[in-house]
This record gives sequence, C-alpha cells and structure tokens, in this order.
Amino acid sequence: MEVTKKNFKEVLKTLPKILQSASFIAIDGEFTGLHHNVKPSSYDTPEERYDKLRQGSMDFLLVQFGMCVFKYERENSRYLVHPFNFYVFPRPMTNSRKPDHRFLCQSSSIDFLASFGFDFNKVFRDGIPYLTSIEKDALKEHIKEKHAFFQQESSASQPSPGFLSPAAKKPVEIPPEQKEFVEGVCKQVDEFVKNDKEQTLNLDPCTGFQRKLTFQTVKARHESGLMLTTKAGEKGERYIEVTKATEEDKKLMMQKRLQAELDEVDDAAGFSQVIDLISSTGKPVIAHNMMLDVMHVLQQFSCPLPEDLSEFKELVGCVFPKLIDTKVMAGTQPFKERIPMTGLTELEKTLKCDPFTKPTFVTAPGYPTYCSSNDQSHEAGYDAFITGSCFATMANYLGTFLDPPRGRVSPTCNLIEPFHNKMCLFRVQDLPYLNLSGPDLIPPRDHVFHLTFPAEWRSHDIQHLFSTFGQVFVNWIDQSSAFVCLTNREEASEVMKTIERAPEYTLKTYKEYRRALNNATPE
Amino acid sequence: MEVTKKNFKEVLKTLPKILQSASFIAIDGEFTGLHHNVKPSSYDTPEERYDKLRQGSMDFLLVQFGMCVFKYERENSRYLVHPFNFYVFPRPMTNSRKPDHRFLCQSSSIDFLASFGFDFNKVFRDGIPYLTSIEKDALKEHIKEKHAFFQQESSASQPSPGFLSPAAKKPVEIPPEQKEFVEGVCKQVDEFVKNDKEQTLNLDPCTGFQRKLTFQTVKARHESGLMLTTKAGEKGERYIEVTKATEEDKKLMMQKRLQAELDEVDDAAGFSQVIDLISSTGKPVIAHNMMLDVMHVLQQFSCPLPEDLSEFKELVGCVFPKLIDTKVMAGTQPFKERIPMTGLTELEKTLKCDPFTKPTFVTAPGYPTYCSSNDQSHEAGYDAFITGSCFATMANYLGTFLDPPRGRVSPTCNLIEPFHNKMCLFRVQDLPYLNLSGPDLIPPRDHVFHLTFPAEWRSHDIQHLFSTFGQVFVNWIDQSSAFVCLTNREEASEVMKTIERAPEYTLKTYKEYRRALNNATPE
Ligand SMILES: Nc1nc2c(ncn2[C@@H]2O[C@H](COP(=O)(O)OP(=O)(O)O)[C@@H](O)[C@H]2O)c(=O)[nH]1
Ligand SMILES: Nc1nc2c(ncn2[C@@H]2O[C@H](COP(=O)(O)OP(=O)(O)O)[C@@H](O)[C@H]2O)c(=O)[nH]1
Repeated sequence: MEVTKKNFKEVLKTLPKILQSASFIAIDGEFTGLHHNVKPSSYDTPEERYDKLRQGSMDFLLVQFGMCVFKYERENSRYLVHPFNFYVFPRPMTNSRKPDHRFLCQSSSIDFLASFGFDFNKVFRDGIPYLTSIEKDALKEHIKEKHAFFQQESSASQPSPGFLSPAAKKPVEIPPEQKEFVEGVCKQVDEFVKNDKEQTLNLDPCTGFQRKLTFQTVKARHESGLMLTTKAGEKGERYIEVTKATEEDKKLMMQKRLQAELDEVDDAAGFSQVIDLISSTGKPVIAHNMMLDVMHVLQQFSCPLPEDLSEFKELVGCVFPKLIDTKVMAGTQPFKERIPMTGLTELEKTLKCDPFTKPTFVTAPGYPTYCSSNDQSHEAGYDAFITGSCFATMANYLGTFLDPPRGRVSPTCNLIEPFHNKMCLFRVQDLPYLNLSGPDLIPPRDHVFHLTFPAEWRSHDIQHLFSTFGQVFVNWIDQSSAFVCLTNREEASEVMKTIERAPEYTLKTYKEYRRALNNATPE
Repeated sequence: MEVTKKNFKEVLKTLPKILQSASFIAIDGEFTGLHHNVKPSSYDTPEERYDKLRQGSMDFLLVQFGMCVFKYERENSRYLVHPFNFYVFPRPMTNSRKPDHRFLCQSSSIDFLASFGFDFNKVFRDGIPYLTSIEKDALKEHIKEKHAFFQQESSASQPSPGFLSPAAKKPVEIPPEQKEFVEGVCKQVDEFVKNDKEQTLNLDPCTGFQRKLTFQTVKARHESGLMLTTKAGEKGERYIEVTKATEEDKKLMMQKRLQAELDEVDDAAGFSQVIDLISSTGKPVIAHNMMLDVMHVLQQFSCPLPEDLSEFKELVGCVFPKLIDTKVMAGTQPFKERIPMTGLTELEKTLKCDPFTKPTFVTAPGYPTYCSSNDQSHEAGYDAFITGSCFATMANYLGTFLDPPRGRVSPTCNLIEPFHNKMCLFRVQDLPYLNLSGPDLIPPRDHVFHLTFPAEWRSHDIQHLFSTFGQVFVNWIDQSSAFVCLTNREEASEVMKTIERAPEYTLKTYKEYRRALNNATPE
C-alpha cells in the first residue's frame, strides 16, 4: 500500500493491530545518496565503518520506507502479508521553529532511483512529515515557554519566568513619540469596557514595540476582566485583540490553546510514530544489508547518532531489540555453500530452487499484490517483501536439519538465534558482521598491506610490484593509495623483506598502517 | 517550450538563429535551496555578500533554467518572444571519469517548488546533462592520455608517455604460474596468423594482469600486422580482440576511435552549450534579482567561482558582458517613487497601470503561450518572460521623458546605460547594487550598531534598550546578535555615550564591529 501524507492518518490507525499480530516485520529504505567524502573500504574496522557511515552518509535523506508485515496463519500454513510503501519528507511546518532541513543528494543514486521509475514528486509534494523525539520535545518546550510568557503578560504583574531578559522584567518607559499612540489605545479600550454590547475589540495593526506598550499599559489600567491576544490579519499584519473575560475564562482559554498547540506537534511527529510502533511491539525486524537503513531510521526518526560505536549498539538495542540481517544469514553456515551470491536479487533467485522451498505468501485483502512478472524491485515496499520472503525460506531450510525435520521455523525459534543482532559490514571480506550484542571479532590481517603510490599508477603496476607473490587483490582507497591483499597468505611474512623500497611508493603492513593512523588521530 | 534530454539536441540546433536575432534575452533559475550555514544580512559589504553566497549557496543545484528571447519587430511594433524552460541535471556518464556530483537541497525551497507544481521527475529522469569547460577539458585530456597509452602498447616498443609509472615502463617478468596461460595465448595467436580465412580472433576473458602479459608477449612475437584491443563482453567480462591490420589501418582506426570519444564528450557538455551560445551573442541579458542566478550559472556551466570579488566581476564580464537587473531598475530613479514594491510579482502588477504602458508581446508560432489567467509563476520560463516584459515596459517609460517622447526604447539605447552591469544586493538597504564594472559604493553606516545578547532576548528587549532613540530597525544575525539601525540618524553619535554597558550584552559601532571582524579573519 502506498502511503503519503494524504492517507497517512488513516493507515496509522490500522497499524497497531497489524503490527501486534506479526510474526516478523521486514523493512527497507531508499536514500538520496550513499556516501560523501569518505568511502567505505574492505578493510575498515567496525569502529571505522560506523564512523564513515555516520559522517559520510547521514546527510543524505531516507525518502522511502518499505515495511512488509508477515503474519503466520497456522490454520492455512501460510503467511499473510501487509506491504507498505511510505513516502517521507521533512516538510517545514508553518509558523513554528521546526528546523528547515538541508539534505544531500548524490547524482548517481538519484539517477539509479529515476531509472527504476521512482516518483520524486510523491516524495516532495506528498511525503509524510516527521520529527525526531528530540525535535518534538524542543518544540513542546518552546510552546510551553511562550505560553508561560503570555500568561504572565496578560495577567497581573507576577514575577517573570527565568528566561526573560532583565530589560523585559521592568516596564518600558514610553518614549515621547509613542505617547499619542498609547493615549489613543487607552481611550479606545476604556470605551470598549464601558460598552456592554461588544465582547471583542480589534485594535489597529502596529509594530512589535507598540504591542509591548499596549500590553503593559492596558494591563496596568485594567487589572482584571480583559484578555489581550496578538493576532495576525490576512496579510500577516499583527494586531491586538481585546476580549472581555474573567480570570477563570482566561485560564481555561489559555489551557485549551496550549493543548491544541501541543497536539499539533504530536501530529507533526508524523512518520516517526510508525517507528515508535514497530519498536514497541518488540517483534523481529528483518532487513537485507541493513546497516545504512538502521542508521538512517534512527537518525531521522529517533535521535542523533552517538559518536561511539558501543553507544550506537546500545541505542539500536533499545529501538530494535531483535534484528536479523538476511545478508548475514545467506553468508553463514549452512547457507554459505548453497548461496553463491548474496545480493538481494541473486539471493531471491537462488532460494527459488532446490534445496530451498518457498513458503506460501498471501497478500492481505485490499493490499496491492506484488507479482514477479511486473518488476517492482528497488521500490522499498517490494524489496521489504522479498527480504521477508527470503528470510522465511532460509528459516524453514534450517528446519530440514532437525530430526524429525520441521516444515516451518519461526523467527523466535532457537535455530534462528545465532543470526540475531548481527549486521552485515558491506564488502568487508574477513568480518562477517557487526555484533550488536557484544564485542566484535578481530580478523587477522597479516596478509594485507597498505601501499601509497603516484596517481598515474594503474592496477597492473601494483600487480607488477607484487608479482613474485602471485595473485593479489587490490582494494583502492583513493587515487594514490590502496590495500593489497595476498591470495597466498603463507607468504605474507616475506613481503616486507622482498619488495624493494623506492621513493615513489611506500609500503606498510596493515598493523603499521593502523598504528600510524591511531597516532595521527588520537581517539 | 519545455526542454529535456529528449528534445534537447533538436532545440539546440534552432538556438543560434533565435539568439542571434534577439533584442535581449531574459533568464531565470530555480534552485534546490538558497542558503546553508551562513545567512545574508542587510549590512553585508559587497565582498561579504559574495563570499556568503559563494560558500553557502553554491552547493545547491540549479535545476531549471528559464530563458525568454525577445526580438523587436519594427514592422509590427511588437516583440516576438521565444520562451524556453530547460530542465537540467548532472546525470553521471557511464563508463567515464565524469564526477558523481553531490548537491544540497533545502526542505523549504523544495516545498516551495512542490507547492507550485514543479515537476521533480522531469528534472531527475529527463534533465539535460552538462559539463563545465574545465570538466570537459579534463575528460578530453584523460581520453587523449588513454589513447596515447594504448597506441604505445599496441605498436612497437616506443618510449612510454611521461605519466606511466616506472614499473610499467619495463616489461613484466612472467611469474611461473602464468607461464601456461601465456603459452596458450601464443599458440592461439600463431595459428590465427597462419590461417588466411579469419580476420579476427577473440581470446578468452582474463584478468587485467593477464591482459598486460598478453599485450607484451604478442607484441614481442608479432612486431607488425596485428592489432590488439581490450573489449568488454555482455556481462562486462574483459577480453582481448586480435585483428589483422597494417600499421596504416591501425593508425586510422585509432584516430577514428579517438575522435568518436572526444565527440561524445562534446555531447555530454549538454546544457553548457546554451550558456556558451548566449554568451557568444553578446546580447543584453536581463534577470530579476540576478546575483544567485548568475553565480549558479557560472559555477555549474562554466568554471568554479573565484574567491576574490574583483575576479568574479571580471569573470561575469567575460561571460555576460551586458547584464541588466530589473530589481535594480525598479528601485532607481525615475522608477523608485512609482514602484512601491520591487518583488517580481508586485512589479508586474504595478507596470500594468498608469503611467506605464506594456508593449505588445507575441509568442512565436509553435511555442506555448503564457497567459496570465493560468498562473505559471515560479516556473523559470514564465518568470523569465515576466522579467523581460517588465524590462521592456520600464525601458519604454524612459522614452516618455525625451523631447519628443519616444514610444520604444531599445536595451542598447544610452538611456538604459546607467542600469548596465549592476546586480541587486538583496535586502541590503543602503547599497542599491553590486557594481560589476568598477569599485562599489561605500554607504555611511554611522547609525548602525552591532549588538550581542542572550538568546532569550526578543525584539522588544532590543527596542527597549534603544528606547530613548525612538524607532529602531532590528536585523537579526543569529539568536544572540543583531544589527540595530536608528531611524533618527542624527542621534547616532549619542548612542555609545547614552546606552549603559552591562555584562549580558555588548554594543559596538558598525565600524568597531567591522574592524574586529577584519582582525579576526585576515584577508
Ligand atoms: N591511481 C589509480 N586510482 C584508481 C584506479 N582505479 C580506481 N582508482 C581510485 O580508487 C577509487 C575507487 O575505485 P573503485 O573501487 O574501482 O570504484 P568505485 O567503487 O566504483 O568507486 C576511485 O575513485 C579512484 O580514486 C586506477 O587504475 N589508478
Ligand atoms: N534571540 C532571538 N533571536 C531571534 C528572534 N527572532 C529571530 N531570531 C534569530 O534571527 C534569525 C533570523 O530571523 P529572521 O530574519 O526573523 O527570519 P528568517 O529571515 O526567516 O530566517 C533566526 O533564525 C533566529 O536565530 C528573537 O525574537 N529572539
């Protein structure tokens, strides 16, 4: 189901029930770009990778959030699926302090989405707005402060709230050129008070300073019985409305107005409420190669990402206590040998064939059916569906190893536990995952070398330098540096002894490289 | 006329003639955002303003370029107009070193465009690509280098081009495990040479290093008569094609291939060619509040903006030798008194009434007509049309002061000269323009003060501090600083004597503020 600001409120009402009854929830995001300045490398440490993504990828925007809710129906031995495709956009709120976001786009990513028919107009015209919890709280705080201020302005001279400047705490002296204005206002208000027929008086539009003088003077002359409110006219011109009201009336009115403004903020929290709902169910959340998705979701809809990796792991644990990455699953025993390529498209293809058996999926009535003939890949909702179906297929495969074999394995079964809370570190070849529930593995990298060289070098120049060691794998960092990895690990100890030094290039062991890096940027 | 990558080539062919016969050309741009980090202020100096826009606005993208070409038809006493609306997007080129751009968007600007029905899909799916001259030259250089390299690789062992690494200059030693591969290749090629029937031999796909070995070995065994080319198969796998060819054939083939690749780059220059065409005509270019438009156009389609304002002025002079800003015109004698508001929409309205007379505009056959009933404002092509029509109306008005009055004033008439090459400095109240053809005016700012204060202060706190000086104008810089400007200029000299000092705020004259700023950031 496509969800934009037009049908969001209705869809939101249906979500609690759908999510509560889920067996698991698959998600996927589409972004306006991938990385900026810093490029992930195959030999990043977990800390380094987290840092690179946090600093280089979070300025892009998640614009589409796919969610597919899978519910196992025991009686029919099949999954009922509710697919959703949310368009989100940080639309600025009118008349508020909601930040006016800046976000990055990467041409190639935009082009990639465009080539799959992605509808940017839906995002920018009809995207669902959102606020992080922190933005929400700040807005509410600001509204409460404003109300406290006006409460004080409109009632008798009580002590000022702490945030007011000393200048604002004492009454303003009326400058000579404003005397006439103030006298005019006093006359108008006095007549209004005497007149029993009128309940409301609109003063003429005036400057902020004149409004300040009006508040102060009218309050002094009429200690009770009147309420003053600043209003904006059709063209935005500001004027004061004077209403007859008892102190009781005033308080009630103020209270009501405050509540309405606070409710408006809750509305503006928009899409963030979906993430809160997913989180509150505590259901397993499945995604494919999920690190960027999870980071974007937290940053955009929950709170800024912490600098420290271990704090990030804690944060993820609080929001998504049970994550499963299908790319990690596919690359681990007993799937590893049976799944040659772990990209989502390739994985889906492999899982259609022996020895795997796809469960039955039925789309909930009223929801659009994804069928494989009309290709909707790279739409977040569809990718979430495929991810969830791959998960269910792999989970069931684990059941075939049981004695007696079991046809269906649930995501909370202990067979699945080894895959919990492990996020794929994309392209890192010797570290299968980021461990969210503990310290990370430290892979041996004795056969990896760091080389810097002139920008004119090409791959074969590096191959040539290492030619006595046979095939090497070159992992470019930038135009003038790369990691070089031996295929013949046993020869690693010979490299530094054998390769001659020359002024045009420098060669370091991985350990030396990392030590130099740590010395350069103390942590 | 809407122009996207689909009809760009055709439209481009028609442009030289249309532009050559123009009386003047009006332009307008739409951007993905306005400013980032630094905010323009009402008391910026020209240098400061240029710097703020260069550093804070150029990361946004110009996505729509409106151009309306006005040609005066003396015989009909009317303007024939050719309106264009170009969608542009820095689409990455496949198979090349063309940079993958990152660009910023500002939520409020995107929302603004969206609310006027702007079609983002047209930009991202069908936008016309472009290259700056510098990118174009770099790409061509790279292609020529590559050809020089392959020329050398495929012909007898001539001296290597300078950019090759020393490692690449000497032949590679064949490692033991590659011996078998190399022998296989030699046998295949020897047989191919003997066989009179076949003209072409495709070797098996192999690694880059193996291709290097193949080139080197085959070249050594067959000094002439063969041409080796690396090709890519359907799945991107690379293999070598061996063709029988005389040295003459080879050279011709190479030359042809080089030319084709260079032509492809010229094509990729895309929209930049339109700017080159406008520039080459030397016709007057009209825009409304043009500074951002001109900066974006230069940066995106010509070359990076210089740091120095006077170099920027020179650059503008080279690309657009005759600029006229209708906002500057509208704010200058004799228009100033007759035009209360100089925003484009308000200006257009004012110019419809006495004492102004709108000339007749006729849209060229085959071009869509802009009519005022169906509101297309904020589409760049329409805004360019309105801008041009405002210019023609104001120009003609100048003719009414002549004796005898003249009904039509051409943009090259000396009555218009005072408005040449002056760009509006938006919101700067005491500097009517940036002077592109000389040094700028230095307005007196004795009545302007710089104030820093706690973030809790509101406008009335500042008014209050200055209350003995009557009305002041507050120009916010950020939450805790502002420029304060006296309405009563004569009292300026009293301010520093009268206002008491307090630890919570600091007050500086404009001169002191600027001196402190210059000391902090040496120029
Ligand atoms: N000097 C040099 N640098 C290269 C070469 N190939 C790639 N690079 C650099 O390595 C970076 C990453 O390249 P690569 O991993 O192949 O491509 P990507 O993942 O598509 O960006 C590029 O942006 C270049 O800076 C090469 O042949 N020579
Ligand atoms: N302390 C304080 N800062 C303000 C106030 N109003 C505006 N500002 C600051 O001044 C900046 C510019 O405000 P303004 O020129 O009114 O709005 P803009 O042009 O729409 O950004 C804001 O982003 C705030 O940081 C105020 O009442 N008190």
